[in-house]
Amino acid sequence: MNWKSEISAAAERINGYAQVTPVIESRVPGLDYPVEMKLEHMQHTGSFKARGAFNTLLSLDVPEAGVVAASGGNHGAAAAYAAQTLGYPAKIFVPDLAGPSKIALIEQTGADLTVVQGEYANALSEAKAHEAATGAMQIHAYDAPATVAGQGTCFAEWEAQGLQADTVLVAVGGGGLIGGALGWFDGARKIVAVEPETSCALNAALQAGEPVDVSVSGVAANALGARRIGGICFDLAKGMTSVLVSDEAITAGQKALWQTHRILVEPAGATALAALTSGVYKPEPDERVAVLVCGGNIAPDPLME
Amino acid sequence: MNWKSEISAAAERINGYAQVTPVIESRVPGLDYPVEMKLEHMQHTGSFKARGAFNTLLSLDVPEAGVVAASGGNHGAAAAYAAQTLGYPAKIFVPDLAGPSKIALIEQTGADLTVVQGEYANALSEAKAHEAATGAMQIHAYDAPATVAGQGTCFAEWEAQGLQADTVLVAVGGGGLIGGALGWFDGARKIVAVEPETSCALNAALQAGEPVDVSVSGVAANALGARRIGGICFDLAKGMTSVLVSDEAITAGQKALWQTHRILVEPAGATALAALTSGVYKPEPDERVAVLVCGGNIAPDPLME
Repeated sequence: MNWKSEISAAAERINGYAQVTPVIESRVPGLDYPVEMKLEHMQHTGSFKARGAFNTLLSLDVPEAGVVAASGGNHGAAAAYAAQTLGYPAKIFVPDLAGPSKIALIEQTGADLTVVQGEYANALSEAKAHEAATGAMQIHAYDAPATVAGQGTCFAEWEAQGLQADTVLVAVGGGGLIGGALGWFDGARKIVAVEPETSCALNAALQAGEPVDVSVSGVAANALGARRIGGICFDLAKGMTSVLVSDEAITAGQKALWQTHRILVEPAGATALAALTSGVYKPEPDERVAVLVCGGNIAPDPLME
Repeated sequence: MNWKSEISAAAERINGYAQVTPVIESRVPGLDYPVEMKLEHMQHTGSFKARGAFNTLLSLDVPEAGVVAASGGNHGAAAAYAAQTLGYPAKIFVPDLAGPSKIALIEQTGADLTVVQGEYANALSEAKAHEAATGAMQIHAYDAPATVAGQGTCFAEWEAQGLQADTVLVAVGGGGLIGGALGWFDGARKIVAVEPETSCALNAALQAGEPVDVSVSGVAANALGARRIGGICFDLAKGMTSVLVSDEAITAGQKALWQTHRILVEPAGATALAALTSGVYKPEPDERVAVLVCGGNIAPDPLME
């Protein structure tokens, strides 16, 4: 697949539907170098997932039964939002692990929502059953070409906004976002995969030489807790740099973003920065770094009634 | 005073000290037109006030006794942060109305802090007494040329970032920020002053034909609750458009920013947008509008231990 041209086409397709998210150059206290950041948590429904959802619905034929998605929360909200915007019915299966804030976010879109006991994989099973029974189109959360190409538009947009960095740090769950980064940059910049120690499907796959099942837990599990890395991502990720961060480092990264810039994000949104603030990834003296801030759907919602 | 050249000089002076804050084009649900926003709540210490504080300390001779400021919270935090960054001692008087989040923000800078019972005017009296006793330099929160010129850099920066709007809505407390806007734009764009119904020193002054004392209360009082508009602002503001918004409209504006963009701000930060979302200010069909998002120091702090 020519990812660069897929992503360029996706960017044209979702133009006007996805929010152009802002970028800043940050001086985070404790780091003696600047960090470029793209504030993708300001995307519609609070995460980059809206890009993949819009690209999927705008590039494929949507059946009369509409769309179905399984999601730890952010993808479900994005799929529901995109479907609502484009006038398609949406059925979303969400694990109860997603928590009340994300579940409320999906409810607000008017989608038909079913909360499933347990983790993401359970919601995916139910979504597949619904797809088989109704003919609704599955929007995969990360392991489909239209999803990966949609997420990749985030990096195309960032380059157009003047990205300088040699190295871009990206948090990884199932691999849709980092797959888009690897597809777009195609070796032109170094990509660093950052995962929680307790939800590290990509790191485990890179070590095993193939996608393997991992157990998922920790503060970022409801966004990054994929049990197995997506095949598209794995094929693109071979040989890449992969680091792990602790829950404590993620929480400290969240506080650093809030105290420095009044950027309030969920744990997943601070995971890439945490690799820098914890010292797990130390740039070379002349290495310019950038961090993708990917999700802002914090729980509890600070303004929920 | 040639405000345009004062503000240009200030912008050069504070370059590298103040954060360049991002801009977005927003589609707020319920509004059928786009709104340009500058996210100045991401400034150091969570509000535009850092600009005026840096400009004051970098343009004037600072005595050995250092600096003193009275503040509802945001200005005190900014003055303390700027003083710390530049190596000067800082003494800050803050009214207890500021609340624990803003008081903690000032404490983090290492400044010498005194909490004063009551409202802003009481803290200002104590700051003036300290100035007289020690020779420390007063950094006025809004009514001094270096402060107004510093705040004006926010609008110079916004124009350089491609501001399109015909009309810019700005929240008003004591008038430092809107004074900077009026000074910078100098009639080239329409400026709309937005105040809470319950803290409206500028509106009252415009009606009376001179600055008059008002009582202050409401959800935004700890940031916008100046008892009397600054003289510099009043001289610049004659004949300008001034509107008032209710506390309910401000709170709804806060929710709209959070739900649409994961931008979490204090009530003052949503006050300018509230004039649009509440319908108090209705743009003409071809009128392009922009909102300055001025402060993010929400209470309670969502991540405070």
